[in-house]
Parts: sequence; structure tokens; C-alpha cells
Amino acid sequence: MTPLISDEQASDRVKAVFDDIRKTRNTDYINNLWRAIAVHPPTLERTWERVKTIMGQPSALDPLVKEMIYIAVSVTNNCEYCLATHSAAAVTKGMTPEMMGELLAIVGLANETNRLAIGYRVPIDERFQ
Amino acid sequence: MTPLISDEQASDRVKAVFDDIRKTRNTDYINNLWRAIAVHPPTLERTWERVKTIMGQPSALDPLVKEMIYIAVSVTNNCEYCLATHSAAAVTKGMTPEMMGELLAIVGLANETNRLAIGYRVPIDERFQ
Amino acid sequence: MTPLISDEQASDRVKAVFDDIRKTRNTDYINNLWRAIAVHPPTLERTWERVKTIMGQPSALDPLVKEMIYIAVSVTNNCEYCLATHSAAAVTKGMTPEMMGELLAIVGLANETNRLAIGYRVPIDERFQ
Amino acid sequence: MTPLISDEQASDRVKAVFDDIRKTRNTDYINNLWRAIAVHPPTLERTWERVKTIMGQPSALDPLVKEMIYIAVSVTNNCEYCLATHSAAAVTKGMTPEMMGELLAIVGLANETNRLAIGYRVPIDERFQ
Amino acid sequence: MTPLISDEQASDRVKAVFDDIRKTRNTDYINNLWRAIAVHPPTLERTWERVKTIMGQPSALDPLVKEMIYIAVSVTNNCEYCLATHSAAAVTKGMTPEMMGELLAIVGLANETNRLAIGYRVPIDERFQ
Amino acid sequence: MTPLISDEQASDRVKAVFDDIRKTRNTDYINNLWRAIAVHPPTLERTWERVKTIMGQPSALDPLVKEMIYIAVSVTNNCEYCLATHSAAAVTKGMTPEMMGELLAIVGLANETNRLAIGYRVPIDERFQ
Repeated sequence: MTPLISDEQASDRVKAVFDDIRKTRNTDYINNLWRAIAVHPPTLERTWERVKTIMGQPSALDPLVKEMIYIAVSVTNNCEYCLATHSAAAVTKGMTPEMMGELLAIVGLANETNRLAIGYRVPIDERFQ
Repeated sequence: MTPLISDEQASDRVKAVFDDIRKTRNTDYINNLWRAIAVHPPTLERTWERVKTIMGQPSALDPLVKEMIYIAVSVTNNCEYCLATHSAAAVTKGMTPEMMGELLAIVGLANETNRLAIGYRVPIDERFQ
Repeated sequence: MTPLISDEQASDRVKAVFDDIRKTRNTDYINNLWRAIAVHPPTLERTWERVKTIMGQPSALDPLVKEMIYIAVSVTNNCEYCLATHSAAAVTKGMTPEMMGELLAIVGLANETNRLAIGYRVPIDERFQ
Repeated sequence: MTPLISDEQASDRVKAVFDDIRKTRNTDYINNLWRAIAVHPPTLERTWERVKTIMGQPSALDPLVKEMIYIAVSVTNNCEYCLATHSAAAVTKGMTPEMMGELLAIVGLANETNRLAIGYRVPIDERFQ
Repeated sequence: MTPLISDEQASDRVKAVFDDIRKTRNTDYINNLWRAIAVHPPTLERTWERVKTIMGQPSALDPLVKEMIYIAVSVTNNCEYCLATHSAAAVTKGMTPEMMGELLAIVGLANETNRLAIGYRVPIDERFQ
Repeated sequence: MTPLISDEQASDRVKAVFDDIRKTRNTDYINNLWRAIAVHPPTLERTWERVKTIMGQPSALDPLVKEMIYIAVSVTNNCEYCLATHSAAAVTKGMTPEMMGELLAIVGLANETNRLAIGYRVPIDERFQ
């Protein structure tokens, strides 16, 4: 089974990331994902840096919209872990059951129409080239 | 190659959908997707009905957010046709290059972290069950 | 670009497979797939052997049904080459446009409902365990 | 965890779909999928309507063939829920273990040869354009 | 649930494959995969033959490299069974935790950059055609 | 179509990355991927930083092995751009046609057996948990 690095087992390098997660998210809890990838510190550092920046910093997209985009990909790829954690994050950021229902309806629709476009080998309209 | 049903070739059943697309979208142009799936009228009717309702009707999610969710799925599935048409739709609804850049960054990040979660076989935290 | 092995370039090992394809399919034409993978003779031999047996030999499933299953996978994976060649094969074996229309409708539906089942994290009913 | 809407919790709108499922399938049992997506009634209605029509109505394709196409997609996408329920449905409609064995062999073969065609970047033969 | 064919239930045809697995791998243990696909003897025979040849015979690629390529695909497809068994095989062949960490980092990176190339619809450079 | 940022159009931020690519790779040529994602400088910077580090720095895995893992993912995801560029990179690093043939054979095999394991719903052996 996947080892999860506890605070006690964490090297200084890992501890620094755990500390930054705690500070940035204002919580003491470290998700299993971080404890799992802590086995390979460069992956932990790079992944956290990017999640923190891309998902967490104020930018052109609303934080909730970012979570919904992330969920759309995770459902399409069947990543249950990512779906579970980011659904929770989306709810925290204001996603209602109605919004989740619509999100999944669109994900379903896109997965279907993607295959219709592929299956019928539809040529791209000149105006969309 | 895929036959594209012209207005002249359209049966009454197909014509009715083409008319509704024109009226709903307030344009004379019918995208190739509709002309291709018109080969199978039940698919044309059902698909248009759902696209019209899910993507087009006022609802809990913003129209632009819906397009971005649709794009996230289409990029993950590598459907170039859907990507091309819905990117154009998203721009019409206000997506700036900066927003598209962020959208693709999140799609890339999610596709990556999905595989980290899968590859490390990370168990779902009790609190996210 | 992908080199396609011509009859003149074919080694004896490759020629033997090409001959068997011609005899089995009763045609002089060798599809590009075989000419491409002929670059690696063991792959050519193994792949032809299995296609010949699984797709070509009389068995519990009807030859046309086999082609439709093959197409369902190829559309889901977005393999345009496989879709093009096996659609042609299916037509030869009796697939009507109506049947192709239904096939793609089911492929679209399954790709959608797969994501609904995944997105809602539906637990498997005891009776289907 | 995913809430499953019981008969008691069902709104009139949901109850109407549950009733139609029971009548159409001639059984009292409602699969978890329907109870899960009942959280979002429009998705429940639309999905049931299409499953009922596409999978359930007499048409150009045999009911068992439809199930096998559905299974081919579900295996390719790794949707265990869909695989479990539609395998059961296929058995009810006459699928023997031998047929299931062949179905999975074709699904495996297509998933393999899809990647050979992609990996060798095989150009589509003029005759299959 | 999936029936697993025990030694007692094995037909002569299945037994012959089980014997060859034991001899080739120099172990008495038969993985569940083989016991599951033994339900369909032709699939068992063909799959074992190819795994034995492609993964097991001395060739241009190092045995550990082969396992890592296999893992890269299995993570991308989210096949937990394949990931679990081939990770164990890779460790036996010398994969260190550091190497596994790098392998997963590359799998994550490729899954990300694949979507950037697709999402930006990057045209292939003339020199890479 | 995708705009490709020329040297003349490059902002200072983009120019800095282009310069580093040229220096690191010891070539004047900048691949289209970099010119495309230069539209969104943070994505350009982050992606180049990681490609440079993960793929380019001396580490536990051989440079050619890294390219082959990258190709395995790109073929599975059907990313033609990534396949074309990384195949060229792999050849530069010593990949022979024989090695490419084996690589694709393994990618095909894994994509097949992944679906057999999924389709038969094979339970993970206790020893591989």
C-alpha cells in the first residue's frame, strides 16, 4: 500500500512544504495526496507550488470556476480521489447541489458530443479553423 | 468522407431542427456538426434538444462558465472539432486570452495531478469519503 | 513521416504475412496499417494473427457485431484510422446508415452515462456485485 | 458519500420517473444510478428518456448487441458501475460466457491496435478517406 | 463477482498455460489476472503468449524499462490492477523509490503537456512531420 | 488558428524563456509548442521549468528511458504533436527502430491488458495490495 509520510517521518524539505500548505490553507490538516507524494520531495515541491499558484492565487477566473474545471477533468479521467477532494473544495467555495448537478450534466453532454463529432468525422467549419 | 446534409437534402424532420437552431441562435449559419448528425434524425433531435437546454438556457451556472467546462472535457478527450467550435463560442461570451490561458493551465494541472493520485494509489481521506 | 513498407522492400518474413492477408481477405490490397507496422515484423505477425483469428474466424459473435464493437472502442479512443477502416469493413458486412446511426448514439450515451456514474460516485448495487 | 434518493424522499417529478422505470422494466427495483442522479431531476429525466429510447426501443440493432456496444465503451473508460449493471443486463438478454469472452477479447484488441495506428502515425488509405 | 479459476477447475487447456506460467516465472503463484481470464481459454493462451514474449524475452529494451513503460500506460488509463502487479514486478527488477518517483513525475508531466499541445492546437513543426 | 509568438512579438518575459531554451538545448530552433503557449507567459515559464528539470537534468533514469515513458503516455492519449517531437528527441538520444518497435508493442499490450483486467473486474491479489 501507499505509504503516507507522517509529520514525524517528514524530512526538512517535506516539512517546509507541509508548513506552507498549513499556512496557506489556514488548516492543520494535510490531505493524503500530499503525504503520498512526499515520498518524492521534488514532486511534492513542484506540485504544491503549481496548485498553490494556479488554483489559489487571485486571477482572471473565479476560485469556484477553477474548481469546477478541475472537477470536469477529474470526472472525465475517472480520478475518484481528485473528484472527492475537489468537490469538497468547490462546496466550500460556494458550489450548490444545483450547480454540481449542472456541472455533471455538461460533463456528460460534452463526453457524448465529443464522440459524435469524432464518430461522424465532422470536418471543422472554415470559420472555426 | 462524412456527408453533410444541405438545406436542400434535409427532410422535414431535419429542417425543423435546422429552423430551431437558426431561430435560437439568431444566425443563418448551421455548424457542420449538425449537418453531419442530420444523417440520423433522432440523434440530431435529441442532441440539439439537450445542447439547447443544458448549454443555452438561463440556469445556476453562467453561460461562459458552461463553455469553459465543455472545453475542459474536449481538451482532455482530444476532440478538436468540439474545442474549435466551443472556443469560438466562449470568446463570443466574453472569454479573454488570459482566461483561456488559465483554463488550459488548470486542464493541464488536473490531468497531471489525476495521474499522481492514481499512480501513488492515494487512499481517500476519511473526511472526503 | 511513417514509412510504409512496399512489396519490394518487404523481407521474407513480412512478405509471408502480406501473402496471408491477401489470401485470407481475397484481395490484392494491403491496408496502410500493415505496411506501417511491417517496420517491426514481430508486431506485424502477432497483430495479424490475432486480427485474423479474433475478427475473422467464425465464432459466437456475428462478424458485423464484432466490427461494431471495434468501432465503439475506436470512437471512444479517437482513433480516426481505425474508425475509417473498420467502418468500411462494417459496411461490407451489412451495416446500414441506420445501424451506424444507432451505434454512434449508443457510444455517445455510454460515454455520457459513464461520467454520470463516475461523477456521482454511484455505489454498485449489491445485486450487481 | 453519494446520497441515494429513497422513494420517500422523491419529489413528484422524481417519483414520475421512478414509476416509469418500474413500469417499463417490469420490476420494482430501481438501480442506484437512478437514485443518485435523482438529486438533479432534469438529469434524471433526460437520462432516463434517452436510455429508455436508445437502449430499450425496438430498432435496427438487436437489444443484446446494444448492450455489448455499451459494455465495450464502459470497459474502455473504466466505468465499473456501468460495466457491472450492463453485464447483468446483457446476460438477461442472452449473452453467454463465450460471448462475453469474445467481446472482451475484441475490446482488448481494439484498444491495442488503436495505439499501434496512433503510435505509427498511419496515414488513412485513400480508399478509406 | 469475477470467478477465479482454481487449479482444480482448470481444463487441460488452461492447466497447460498455468504450468507454463509457473515454469517460466519460476514460482508456484498464479496471479488473479490469469485465473480470471482463464474463463475464456483463447484469451488466456493469446495473452500469456504475448506477455511472455514481449515482456519476458531478452530484447533491445531492458526488462525494467519495459515494466516502466507498462506502468506509464496503466497509470494513464487508471488500471489499478495492472499498476499494482507491474509495480511489484518493476521493484523485483530493480526499480528504486527514486526511479518510481521520477517515472510518475514524467507520466504526470506528459499527461499535462499532451493537453497543452491539444488545447493550443499546436501545428506540428515541419521538421517533425 | 493558433498564433505562434515570433521572436519579434515576444515580451521580455517570453524572450527570457526562449533564450534559456536556446542555451539549454544548444540550438537556435524553438519548437512550435513553446511559441504557442507563449501566449500565456506563466504557462510558458512553468512548463519550460519543469520540462527542463524533469526531462533534462541528470537523474536516476536514463534520458532515453525518460523519452520512451513520455512517448508511451502520448500514444495512449493520442497526442500527435507530442509523439512527433518526442520521437525525434528519442532518436537523437539513441532510440533505434527496433527499440521504437518494442516500445509500441508494449504500449499496445498494456492498453489491451488494462482492459482485460478492467473488463473481468479482477480483484487485486493480496500480495499486491
